[in-house]
Amino acid sequence: MTPERARYDQESLLVVATQVFTERGYDGTSMEDLARVAGITKSSIYHHVESKEEILRIALDRALDALFVVFSEPPSSSGAAVDRLRHVVRRTVEVLVAELPYVTLLLRVRGNTATEKAALERRRTFDRQVRALVAEAIADGDLRPELDPALTERLVFGMINSVVEWYRPRSETTVDDLVAAVLAVVDGLRT
Amino acid sequence: MTPERARYDQESLLVVATQVFTERGYDGTSMEDLARVAGITKSSIYHHVESKEEILRIALDRALDALFVVFSEPPSSSGAAVDRLRHVVRRTVEVLVAELPYVTLLLRVRGNTATEKAALERRRTFDRQVRALVAEAIADGDLRPELDPALTERLVFGMINSVVEWYRPRSETTVDDLVAAVLAVVDGLRT
Repeated sequence: MTPERARYDQESLLVVATQVFTERGYDGTSMEDLARVAGITKSSIYHHVESKEEILRIALDRALDALFVVFSEPPSSSGAAVDRLRHVVRRTVEVLVAELPYVTLLLRVRGNTATEKAALERRRTFDRQVRALVAEAIADGDLRPELDPALTERLVFGMINSVVEWYRPRSETTVDDLVAAVLAVVDGLRT
Repeated sequence: MTPERARYDQESLLVVATQVFTERGYDGTSMEDLARVAGITKSSIYHHVESKEEILRIALDRALDALFVVFSEPPSSSGAAVDRLRHVVRRTVEVLVAELPYVTLLLRVRGNTATEKAALERRRTFDRQVRALVAEAIADGDLRPELDPALTERLVFGMINSVVEWYRPRSETTVDDLVAAVLAVVDGLRT
């Protein structure tokens, strides 16, 4: 097996596992289930990964790494807080659509394993960073002064996350439509 | 067993079943599981309900009936569309908090049984009625003209529904705080 083939196999295993974990739950999925759905043997799964939890970790990191890249982009760290917040909102929606199966799995995670707990902790860090941006934008007088930063962050990102429940690639709604609609809501919070 | 005792028992069975269905999924829960968690025998469950699906139906109807009552309230049917929409939004948040376990279960339903399909159909009817209100409020010039009614309805109600993911009764955030924060977002969409 060439390294290229091995990479291809690990990628398809990840796609299948992410879908099955999302549908049946991580706890409700066995390595036997994964092998059956992927159409490969259990031993060939172990050729790629050490455990079921390693597959979960790779899938969740895919979503989380993509989300954290957003904070490292220049428009997230310079300029007015409200503009940085708008950039983070726009890019979060784009990441959600680009990595839809992985973000969907991330949002279903309930924290039963060490891997899930670590993923939830990274999500909380993400939320804290966004909350700080909301608070800064309110302090700057660019978002309405009566807004509660924590509650506003929860509602706005709850709204963004709810998109995984209905959005399907190649639906009539493009990612740009989605970004525009979400930013229309955020802009409604401006002074 | 007096009728009063019977009602009490059906109510506690419903509470337990709703929690277990939400945690493990309806498909993943057997009548044996319910009996064990409720601390009663399977035959005493059958004294109250005919089947597992009947318990699910009662639980989902509890959420859906409470949501549909909102449309029958006078402020939902008279006055400007934007005010009717605000009333529906406010009351939906209140119903979500008052019937939190049942609404949470409703939002997890994926449509594998006839009961789940019927519940999803009622949810779609609810969404259609709200979408019509959003469209009317835009046509009245009370919500911003560039808004897409379907997308706006999905995002606003996605935001409201996301509250089940984190809201707990007796949290620091009261239902009035929640209503105010959600209405602040909706009011941001006004012209």
